[in-house]
Amino acid sequence: MAEPIVRFGILGCADIARKLSRAITLAPNATLYAVASRSNEKATAFASANGFPPGSKIYGSYEALLDDPDVDAVYVPLPTSLHVHWAVLVAQKKKHLLLEKPVALNAAEFDKIIEACESNGVQLMDGTMWVHHPRTAKMAEFLSDECRFGRLQKVHTMFTFASDPDFLKNDIRVKPDLDALGSLGDAGWYCIRSILFTANFELPKTVIALRDPQLNEAGVILSCGASLYWEDGKVATFHCSFLGNLTMDITAIGTKGSLHVHDFVIPYQEKEASFFSVSEAGFNDLVTGWTKEPSKHIVTTELPQEALMVREFSRLVCDIKFKSLKPEKKWPTMSRKTQLIVDAVKTSIDKGFEPVHINEHASVSVLSGLDYLKKNLLGKST
Amino acid sequence: MAEPIVRFGILGCADIARKLSRAITLAPNATLYAVASRSNEKATAFASANGFPPGSKIYGSYEALLDDPDVDAVYVPLPTSLHVHWAVLVAQKKKHLLLEKPVALNAAEFDKIIEACESNGVQLMDGTMWVHHPRTAKMAEFLSDECRFGRLQKVHTMFTFASDPDFLKNDIRVKPDLDALGSLGDAGWYCIRSILFTANFELPKTVIALRDPQLNEAGVILSCGASLYWEDGKVATFHCSFLGNLTMDITAIGTKGSLHVHDFVIPYQEKEASFFSVSEAGFNDLVTGWTKEPSKHIVTTELPQEALMVREFSRLVCDIKFKSLKPEKKWPTMSRKTQLIVDAVKTSIDKGFEPVHINEHASVSVLSGLDYLKKNLLGKST
Repeated sequence: MAEPIVRFGILGCADIARKLSRAITLAPNATLYAVASRSNEKATAFASANGFPPGSKIYGSYEALLDDPDVDAVYVPLPTSLHVHWAVLVAQKKKHLLLEKPVALNAAEFDKIIEACESNGVQLMDGTMWVHHPRTAKMAEFLSDECRFGRLQKVHTMFTFASDPDFLKNDIRVKPDLDALGSLGDAGWYCIRSILFTANFELPKTVIALRDPQLNEAGVILSCGASLYWEDGKVATFHCSFLGNLTMDITAIGTKGSLHVHDFVIPYQEKEASFFSVSEAGFNDLVTGWTKEPSKHIVTTELPQEALMVREFSRLVCDIKFKSLKPEKKWPTMSRKTQLIVDAVKTSIDKGFEPVHINEHASVSVLSGLDYLKKNLLGKST
Repeated sequence: MAEPIVRFGILGCADIARKLSRAITLAPNATLYAVASRSNEKATAFASANGFPPGSKIYGSYEALLDDPDVDAVYVPLPTSLHVHWAVLVAQKKKHLLLEKPVALNAAEFDKIIEACESNGVQLMDGTMWVHHPRTAKMAEFLSDECRFGRLQKVHTMFTFASDPDFLKNDIRVKPDLDALGSLGDAGWYCIRSILFTANFELPKTVIALRDPQLNEAGVILSCGASLYWEDGKVATFHCSFLGNLTMDITAIGTKGSLHVHDFVIPYQEKEASFFSVSEAGFNDLVTGWTKEPSKHIVTTELPQEALMVREFSRLVCDIKFKSLKPEKKWPTMSRKTQLIVDAVKTSIDKGFEPVHINEHASVSVLSGLDYLKKNLLGKST
């Protein structure tokens, strides 16, 4: 039996949608099916430039795409301020939702999206690609190894890139009405996600923004950072910026091992990626050298990470569509935790770099709220 | 003409003195001449185990070594709390001073040492070895290159090592009466020095300790960190610890380039060391890979960095002794700036993680005070 195919619709012709179109083409269980833009002409040009198969649908409005009964899933690369409106509508139209990061302007907005997806039984996943690379699984293996890594003590992550004057003037990521979270919602999202990844998605108790974030004239964050604190003494720091040369690091230090990766968001090369690790490193007797050096681990992949993301998302969609399985909650849970920390950093900046306590209870109570909603809706549907 | 030789005396038989004894032996312009310990037996064993030439002097007290007119320079690896007493005495005995780090318990103490060295016309240098490695000069070249690195935006440094239970119980670095600064004075010293190095020794305006430093029962710091802020928006963070697997990183991000080094304090190997740099890195058109990867730069050295330190110190000593040159002020100036930041981090911790402003003026006024003293002493000696 041929693998079931998920038919994707894309809302808008954002630059990132070109990369995703290729990924959908590469994923064995997905196909490009429709694209919508307020300009029919733009959508037609996008489809022809990005390998849409003959017969693909071109829509002159987002609503029209959502009304197409043959669209299984929708990829939403719209500016963040439009997420809640369109994402909720996608879910209400019973389409599965692949949503660009940051998922929303804040967790409260994202909760509306989660609620809509849960109540409509559709899969929700955010567009964080690197977590789908097989390298990430290999790193997780190392980080969770009591013998090789031990307990996490400290993690530092950075994602910076030097944007050009055109970006700093015109990109949606520097516009308060489009991507109000600026660098924090864009580059910072990855830093925070990678910190949560190394901490096995345990939320910190406290978040404090570093001082002197750089803002543009409209008050949008161009660079910032924060420190995060856990109950057990773990500490994390990160720095994200539109103003520094391209850098994307995770450095995780455990009681017994350490890990370095320098291209975690987008690997240098598509087909292979590496990380460095060492366990129980020490000095020689005279302290003039190390007893061992970190080892380089190379992980190859046939498909690029964005295609692996589409494949995983489509697999879950097929499970729901053909096997009547429930949507996988781990993906929106990770998104929500990431968004919670984004919110906390933003709040700390807005409050003059005060510590912000991550309300485990609120987080839990929201999750319980969802469980409650689900039960209620389940009640309604039975 | 044979190179003039500096005769070293060593105060005490600390573990680190073994490494320094070898370095003195390797340096072409230095020789091991005397060692002192409160136990004559211990000093004799140390001298015989560490390559002291025949005829070397063994002293049963530090004072006796300082009274030996043939000792040119003294290496002081004593616990930090003893530095000010013995370092001042070394200077008063007109011996040049190679002083282990941290140089003192605080900058006010260190100022007494500087004052004693200045007024006695002796060279003062601290025992930070990595700055003498030729790799450091190569990194400085890159960091100061407007085209390849641009302006520094962010630097993160870490030095952690996982100490064993014996260290955590017995090492002088966890004893409040010996090395009260704990991990901050030991591993943190290197982090701070490397931050100042990347910032071209411009002092930050503000220092804030990260929360949740780990202390032992006696209140000595086992792990901590801080964020540092400059007038122009530069930000630095560091983390130092006795509790994490061996890691020693500098990551410096400029507007045009970035630099990584993973063994900055003690290179993996003695004869060669490397760092990684990349300039104007970007993404390919579809943002599926980098336009260029960081390059590895290997720097070889005939002499290990600690021998290069001894050689540089001895060169300055010979310049003073045989050419009547003045002591080189750049070394104590770097030490003092490092100590000022150590003090600021400690103060921030003690004050509940409040921001501490680095008083440029106080720093300047202290330097002016020294100039004043020097002029006065010059007045006296003419």
